[in-house]
Amino acid sequence: MDASTDKPPRLKIRRVNLDTGRENVVVLSRRSVALRPDVFRGFSRVELKAGDRELLATLLLTDDGMVGPDELGLSEPAFRRFGQPVGGLVSVKPATPPESLDYVRAKIQGHSLQPAEIGAIIDDISHYRYSDMEIAAFLISSASFMTSGELLSLSRAMADAGTELKWDRPMVVDKHCIGGIPGNRTSMVVVPIVAAHGLTIPKTSSRAITSPAGTADTMEVLARVDLGVDEMREVVNTCHGCLVWGGHVNLSPADDILISVERPLSLDTREQMVASIMSKKLAAGSTHLLIDLPVGPSAKLATAMDAMRLRKLFEFVGDHFGIAVEVITTDGRQPIGNGIGPVLEAQDVMAVLSNDPLAPKDLREKSLRLAAHLIDYDPEMRGGKGYARARELLDSGAALKQMHKIIDAQGPSGCSTTVGTLAADIKAERDGIVQAIDCLRFNRLARSAGAPIDKGAGIRLFKKIGDRVEQGEPLYRIHAVEQAEFDLAVAAANADSGYAIGPRDGGSAR
Amino acid sequence: MDASTDKPPRLKIRRVNLDTGRENVVVLSRRSVALRPDVFRGFSRVELKAGDRELLATLLLTDDGMVGPDELGLSEPAFRRFGQPVGGLVSVKPATPPESLDYVRAKIQGHSLQPAEIGAIIDDISHYRYSDMEIAAFLISSASFMTSGELLSLSRAMADAGTELKWDRPMVVDKHCIGGIPGNRTSMVVVPIVAAHGLTIPKTSSRAITSPAGTADTMEVLARVDLGVDEMREVVNTCHGCLVWGGHVNLSPADDILISVERPLSLDTREQMVASIMSKKLAAGSTHLLIDLPVGPSAKLATAMDAMRLRKLFEFVGDHFGIAVEVITTDGRQPIGNGIGPVLEAQDVMAVLSNDPLAPKDLREKSLRLAAHLIDYDPEMRGGKGYARARELLDSGAALKQMHKIIDAQGPSGCSTTVGTLAADIKAERDGIVQAIDCLRFNRLARSAGAPIDKGAGIRLFKKIGDRVEQGEPLYRIHAVEQAEFDLAVAAANADSGYAIGPRDGGSAR
Repeated sequence: MDASTDKPPRLKIRRVNLDTGRENVVVLSRRSVALRPDVFRGFSRVELKAGDRELLATLLLTDDGMVGPDELGLSEPAFRRFGQPVGGLVSVKPATPPESLDYVRAKIQGHSLQPAEIGAIIDDISHYRYSDMEIAAFLISSASFMTSGELLSLSRAMADAGTELKWDRPMVVDKHCIGGIPGNRTSMVVVPIVAAHGLTIPKTSSRAITSPAGTADTMEVLARVDLGVDEMREVVNTCHGCLVWGGHVNLSPADDILISVERPLSLDTREQMVASIMSKKLAAGSTHLLIDLPVGPSAKLATAMDAMRLRKLFEFVGDHFGIAVEVITTDGRQPIGNGIGPVLEAQDVMAVLSNDPLAPKDLREKSLRLAAHLIDYDPEMRGGKGYARARELLDSGAALKQMHKIIDAQGPSGCSTTVGTLAADIKAERDGIVQAIDCLRFNRLARSAGAPIDKGAGIRLFKKIGDRVEQGEPLYRIHAVEQAEFDLAVAAANADSGYAIGPRDGGSAR
Repeated sequence: MDASTDKPPRLKIRRVNLDTGRENVVVLSRRSVALRPDVFRGFSRVELKAGDRELLATLLLTDDGMVGPDELGLSEPAFRRFGQPVGGLVSVKPATPPESLDYVRAKIQGHSLQPAEIGAIIDDISHYRYSDMEIAAFLISSASFMTSGELLSLSRAMADAGTELKWDRPMVVDKHCIGGIPGNRTSMVVVPIVAAHGLTIPKTSSRAITSPAGTADTMEVLARVDLGVDEMREVVNTCHGCLVWGGHVNLSPADDILISVERPLSLDTREQMVASIMSKKLAAGSTHLLIDLPVGPSAKLATAMDAMRLRKLFEFVGDHFGIAVEVITTDGRQPIGNGIGPVLEAQDVMAVLSNDPLAPKDLREKSLRLAAHLIDYDPEMRGGKGYARARELLDSGAALKQMHKIIDAQGPSGCSTTVGTLAADIKAERDGIVQAIDCLRFNRLARSAGAPIDKGAGIRLFKKIGDRVEQGEPLYRIHAVEQAEFDLAVAAANADSGYAIGPRDGGSAR
């Protein structure tokens, strides 16, 4: 059909309350004046036009009276993005697929893509021109293999698609952990230490997707995290650092979209992970970056060899874009800190910053080690003195003071700060030594208890690997806010505690 | 979350009129008693359970009053497949993805799949357990490369997923054309000739997907085509042959599903095409098969080399499964016959069978050639006499008589048999010789005129390649039933006629 000879009928815009995730969806009546069964089918792609506004969307057909025969229903994201008023006139016709899909098909056939081709794909994706199925096609075509050139192009293209932060100073440090370890809220200790030292560390973090808490969820217990770019800049100017939610700053909108498709398909490839992280660091204007790769049997990386291969990719991309990247591996055999879930983790963080004698030692030590690496980037520091400086800032209370300054600058969030009052202890079934703690299991247990939706839900661990336990002694406590979630989590924990307890000689049994 | 500890709330089944293509979609109120925002999101996958019935579906959230807070809305395909009454109780919880998705992920990572793994994937797909995105993941993972073992496994698995036809005779012949050429209704001439000879030829055909007519659409002008397996068997027992729609016989339900995802993604790979065709021939019980590969600049196969590669794949799969396969290449530079569109093509077919002196010679000659190959399979025939026998059956009127017998046995369809009365001639813009006719262009022109929805819409060609034309002389006539379609098609044809006309010396210009 030629665009020149094509005069699609005009419909009235209606807003419909369908939650369609992120995808643009529009609804057409089966009795619509615009309907031609050979042209429109359910779930086909259509193009909306009103004046100079255009939008690609997925079509749903209904005869349930949700929309009239002369109306087109726009789901929430489609309505927002199209930006036209209710009742306004819109034409709808079968969509011409984005041209960049030709490159996706070439990639499927085994061709490597040029930077401009990857740029066009990412531009279309970040402007919501791809259906979820088309996004899946791109992800899967790149999952089998990606050349190093494609990895660089993808990182650059994803950074270009979002907000670029510029900082008027020569050094902007950052840290990133690839995640998967419950607790592990080192950023909330590292940022105040490094900021207290005087380095600029504008930290953006994610919310939980499949875990019981992201750094943004935990920081939200203490302060607002949904700051805009200008607000974030102001906090950093005042405090040298911040701890905000990256989603609101929009550093890599394409990455947010890709992740929403990777997740249901459980796609998880090294190159896509590196491009995702490095695109955000490029957009955030980081000059010096520390990457934390936890290694352990139930961590994302099971072996040192896995970590090594990932390290090389981070270094390669960092070198290419002139970001000083240092990659370290850390102990990922068990949760870091005692708390799992936003409020419980925030308590751990404040205990470490306050030098509370009961504060979790592993969280303190790991945070000091990471902060030391970042402080060692400072040209003013004598080599190897970063650790001593970090400990001095923590022990003296300077880091705590800096944290309070950041919290004040970001403002109150109004979130609940209390631990869930429903509580039950899960006890050891035998005497012995803790041999292993299953990170995946604890992510799932804390989520079923209600985290991160219920800020006070989660788990407090009493025992770590190497600790001696006696039969009947509590291993951990489950906290919940809602009774249904509480019952669910306790039953699941009683079925499988997630602990392996063995005799001192190292043999292990659950 | 453990299945053992998981007690999802029960909802009342409601039937909602949402056309969601083939995919199972269910609708939940945003105020539903079952809703937990961390568990259910729009477009996530959920599992329905009622007694021993289970169904996987994609979730839509609404607060538009389409469903109440204690209800679950089932779209038409989901309702039909779940098979539970309106008002019946159903539990809904986040779906555990089908285990066979692990094999898809392995394939994405570059592993080859074992027959049992491909079998499990196809079994899940044909039972509607995959979302469209998951189907796309499988297709794309196999589009880059497929081993010959995987090709065999896929053909076998798709055949096993559908109805298997068994014929109580040693030889069942069949023909297949890979399509793409407008007109080209050879099956409707070949089947009566071969059946008149006495060979068994139970022909199933497809309806148009992107073309202006499939053989099933054209045959429907003359007779009913939506016969069930038993009806089809009766026709074949009486007439030796039939011409029915394959979709109703359900030979390869998995293939129908795969095609519905390949199409929007414009995926078109040799291996998937061969597996698709051969799975249907396996299920149909064919013992001897003739494959027609048209080659031409605007055909699916542009060069003889392309055709050769495809031929080898058909032969390989045929040999493995003990089907005698013969593959021939034919002239695919232009439409076959004069008519394009169901009624116009049916007129061509009946003109050839009636030995009408004005019948298109190319359709007659190609059909005789194909019928000759099939008749030569008959052990009773002396080698090389197939063509003479085919011509004898056609010229004597025996084939026409057989066609009437088949039409009577299949019964009347009640479809319109008249050519669209809106008509316009498209004329040559210069003197010269017809150098080329663009098949893709004519598929699109005939569709925009209304075919195959309007049976009488389409195109009648007056000139073929090599014909001399004078400026102003009609090249073809557009027929339509609806004014809007007519205007659209005529405007498109005037913008680009689809003909290349050049001087006798072979130079070409449009």
